Amino acid sequence: MSTDRKQGVAAAGGFRAAGIAAGIKPNGKPDLTLVVNDGPAAVAAGVFTRNKVKAAPVLWSQQVLTTGSLRAVVLNSGGANACTGPGGFQDTHATAEKVADVLGVGAIDVAVCSTGLIGERLPMEAVLTGVETVAKALAHGVDASLDAATGVLTTDSHPKQTALTHAGGWTVGGFAKGAGMCAPNMATMLSVVTTDAAVDQATADAALRAAVEGTFNRLDVDGGTSTNDTLLLLVSGASGVTPGAEEFTAALTEVCADLVAQLQADAEGVTKHVAVKVTGAATDAEAVAVARTVAQDNLCKTAFFAGDPNWGRIAMAVGNAPTEFDPADLDITINGVPVCRAGTGVGDRLAADMSGLDILVEVDLHAGPGTGTILTTDLSHAYVEENSAYSS
Amino acid sequence: MSTDRKQGVAAAGGFRAAGIAAGIKPNGKPDLTLVVNDGPAAVAAGVFTRNKVKAAPVLWSQQVLTTGSLRAVVLNSGGANACTGPGGFQDTHATAEKVADVLGVGAIDVAVCSTGLIGERLPMEAVLTGVETVAKALAHGVDASLDAATGVLTTDSHPKQTALTHAGGWTVGGFAKGAGMCAPNMATMLSVVTTDAAVDQATADAALRAAVEGTFNRLDVDGGTSTNDTLLLLVSGASGVTPGAEEFTAALTEVCADLVAQLQADAEGVTKHVAVKVTGAATDAEAVAVARTVAQDNLCKTAFFAGDPNWGRIAMAVGNAPTEFDPADLDITINGVPVCRAGTGVGDRLAADMSGLDILVEVDLHAGPGTGTILTTDLSHAYVEENSAYSS
Repeated sequence: MSTDRKQGVAAAGGFRAAGIAAGIKPNGKPDLTLVVNDGPAAVAAGVFTRNKVKAAPVLWSQQVLTTGSLRAVVLNSGGANACTGPGGFQDTHATAEKVADVLGVGAIDVAVCSTGLIGERLPMEAVLTGVETVAKALAHGVDASLDAATGVLTTDSHPKQTALTHAGGWTVGGFAKGAGMCAPNMATMLSVVTTDAAVDQATADAALRAAVEGTFNRLDVDGGTSTNDTLLLLVSGASGVTPGAEEFTAALTEVCADLVAQLQADAEGVTKHVAVKVTGAATDAEAVAVARTVAQDNLCKTAFFAGDPNWGRIAMAVGNAPTEFDPADLDITINGVPVCRAGTGVGDRLAADMSGLDILVEVDLHAGPGTGTILTTDLSHAYVEENSAYSS
Repeated sequence: MSTDRKQGVAAAGGFRAAGIAAGIKPNGKPDLTLVVNDGPAAVAAGVFTRNKVKAAPVLWSQQVLTTGSLRAVVLNSGGANACTGPGGFQDTHATAEKVADVLGVGAIDVAVCSTGLIGERLPMEAVLTGVETVAKALAHGVDASLDAATGVLTTDSHPKQTALTHAGGWTVGGFAKGAGMCAPNMATMLSVVTTDAAVDQATADAALRAAVEGTFNRLDVDGGTSTNDTLLLLVSGASGVTPGAEEFTAALTEVCADLVAQLQADAEGVTKHVAVKVTGAATDAEAVAVARTVAQDNLCKTAFFAGDPNWGRIAMAVGNAPTEFDPADLDITINGVPVCRAGTGVGDRLAADMSGLDILVEVDLHAGPGTGTILTTDLSHAYVEENSAYSS
């Protein structure tokens, strides 16, 4: 496999994309993206937020995706269209209808994604006019991919995209956005991944769920699963090549992992890239739950920010996690240096050097075969600043 | 009832207390407190952290409290004696033995509490010498209460104590400490409450559990239930008055609520005192869980810091809570101003004035009769500073 990081959602055959500034954001930055699948296939799969408060575009996209088929996805930043009532749902419907009109497809073929402030209606005149404009800009290739990845950004500092071309002659590529309110659960913030591999809907769906479980669902910036999380996989089949399910899943997982690493690196206020790896839990699910408890603990996160190997805070967090273990067996290792063995401090904790960008926290519960890793970030002054300076 | 806020743990008849600087803290600040029950009764009850990683003094105190009786409590700051292995437990045992020797009681009559950095052994020479010194300083009344409340402080900016004398001639008083790693669960950080009411162990235990459930267990500064949380109730019976169980529970609850309000007001980096009140949940437990999810969400907490009525973040957090409700019924009110009705924004959210110190967030799920409130604080630059500038 070779990875071309300059490519994205319009890298695979059969896809066009575009992104423009439609005037949805008051500051005039790009805010509208369109991704079109020209086929021959129109297979689609998706995963959505598990938050019980779901934005109108999530409710719409879940509905249209029940067919297992999509021709286009329209995405806006500058407003989440969440907690906007029946009027907000009508706005989403109207947006899909407009895209359908312009492209000559049905509204049922069009998914909608939104991101931005919760609780405000979208400026629909700007959205509907923008749909006409963005459709005219649709193109294949590098520039179109970048524009599409740019139109969905909110507090992100730069676009996040990737693509991978398999030696077998097929490509998987996509973009993602998300920097805060970021704890994807069976979904991500907003992400569209495309492929020209000729895989059927059942294969695409299974591959997507497998890929997400080990990638997007393992990132936790601030524990806040948003109202709008959506990840869509579009399949054009344009390469004419049908890869094996395993190699397709592997390629898709690699693309998702790449996007997640970019999300982690651009998280709000991030100064440290932290991986919390738990072993020895009763089950994999419990290992992930323990890792997530550490990743969400503000005392651990401020210690990460400080580069302080204060493993007692990690032990405290592990002790609060929903799992059974014997505290007398607890091992904690930071960046390869044992700091706690059998529940007791060992050596000089300052020997664990946390001054670099990357921090690996390893926790062994010695209570079973379960393992799991969560990627997270630190809690910095910049995080507080970014989330208190203005409404986002 | 009349409340004398200048009093504390040595206000009730039959109690002496003291607090000194024993050299456990390198900076020479007070770090050792002793509370003695001179009787005639020696009834005691206690609640302890639910963290699975329990400090040595918690394990010791749980053990000696199985008798339902205590003559003394020794408390140190400057070290949590958690994750310190069998050696740490021996240190706790030796401390209790030393107190027992000095007072002429049994070690089984002595509870031990510790607070400070996790994972470091205590300087036992300073502790044991300190026990002799603090015992000589034991006294009844105002000054002794203040010294005792001071000896347990860590990142707290000032001592927290209260007392209440009932018209019936009996008193309940006590102190508490705690500013960070503060999400008491069936316990608090460290708190000792004393009374000269003549209540039996069953009444004392039931009253304590009832009082804690609505007070200490409803405070959540940063979601971190510590390894050392301990709340002890000591009963001397010196007043000779036996109040009814209900009025005793009411007085104890008032004292606990007062201490909790002081903990909230002195929480690390606090600039806002926030109450999250949830109604309309299926059960009270679910209401508390929803309130806790909002109270622990960093995006809500940074919005509180900003004084920004960004209720969409509250809706997002509610949607992530472990409870069932229909998002189309969700009501949110901030400081009396309706900002979300039936899941949809109403009016101008900026009408909700959050510029003051106190913020009341009301969430109505319209899904049942359950209610519950959590007290919390904002996430400020000062919180990050205090928890990253040094190991605590």
